[in-house]
Amino acid sequence: MRYPNGQKNKSMASKKTRSMGFSNRGMTLEEDINATNVFYRSADKAVIHKKPTPVQVVNVHYPKRSAAVITEGYFKQPSTTDYNGIYRDRHVDFEAKETKNKTRFPLANIHEHQIKHMQSIANHGGICFLIIRFSVYNETYYMPAETFFPYWEAQFNGGKKSIPYETIQNTGYRIPFHYQARVHYLAIIDQLYF
Amino acid sequence: MRYPNGQKNKSMASKKTRSMGFSNRGMTLEEDINATNVFYRSADKAVIHKKPTPVQVVNVHYPKRSAAVITEGYFKQPSTTDYNGIYRDRHVDFEAKETKNKTRFPLANIHEHQIKHMQSIANHGGICFLIIRFSVYNETYYMPAETFFPYWEAQFNGGKKSIPYETIQNTGYRIPFHYQARVHYLAIIDQLYF
Repeated sequence: MRYPNGQKNKSMASKKTRSMGFSNRGMTLEEDINATNVFYRSADKAVIHKKPTPVQVVNVHYPKRSAAVITEGYFKQPSTTDYNGIYRDRHVDFEAKETKNKTRFPLANIHEHQIKHMQSIANHGGICFLIIRFSVYNETYYMPAETFFPYWEAQFNGGKKSIPYETIQNTGYRIPFHYQARVHYLAIIDQLYF
Repeated sequence: MRYPNGQKNKSMASKKTRSMGFSNRGMTLEEDINATNVFYRSADKAVIHKKPTPVQVVNVHYPKRSAAVITEGYFKQPSTTDYNGIYRDRHVDFEAKETKNKTRFPLANIHEHQIKHMQSIANHGGICFLIIRFSVYNETYYMPAETFFPYWEAQFNGGKKSIPYETIQNTGYRIPFHYQARVHYLAIIDQLYF
């Protein structure tokens, strides 16, 4: 938004930059996945939701005849992945991350407790994976958790702290874009599991 | 907590009353289920978590060199059930409610969008149910979602707005108490599905 004096509103500009930086369609990966999940649910294809961001509520104010207001709260580290649900009788569980990096996906994007959670889900028979977007190329990949784990573990044995872009291209699956399913990951699940 | 002048600290007292009212062991149903799920995960029996309560964040303050503080937020109505995860390859999804009522479970405890969610989960092959505690008797029941739905729907066709305690006793399954699995609902799932 441009103002009469030719300057941009600072906060609007930074928000816009942030949002545009992630995808050339101006949608973040999270927004794309949320829209996809809404479509999957409305078409009754799958029931998959993003979990709410956990908030540590410290203070709540209760005004008379109004909704309770949280006046002090803190964002907590999630102990699981962000998305889960059910598709064709199977439990589905995944984490989604985008990077502006052009050559590699830094492993620091994923927390260790999320890895432990994904290992448990995989052990118990769930369909578990990562969705990784390289926002510069606007390419989104499906990487099975089982493929991801060895790269994660290698970093503690002298291995790299990131996965090269080419490795993700070669070992992952490019997720197709559909108008209604902007990150159509069920197409990959169909291919891999059914 | 009693103070020297014989008066109770008001806010402590009301918290205690609330907590004690739900169960004669002083634990709420939610606390019991959370402890149960921690045990199930640590014993690697199942991976089931409570979803965080959704918060609409309106204002966040970013102090220098400190964690972001939410200074205005509101509790949102959850659009799904509170608990889900995986057990023996199956997707598990449930809602838990306790009532102080001695004779019936009021259907107003469950929201319509939660029923819709549960119907979708059941249609897609998930194990879906309610955990209902009558706190006065300290009895906790497992009611399959498929058993619950007709009672829910009946209220819109001139039926009751509640399910009698006896009906829940007869059509539900009493959930056993174990020291580590305080609400040992997997025992009922084993019985019904495996």
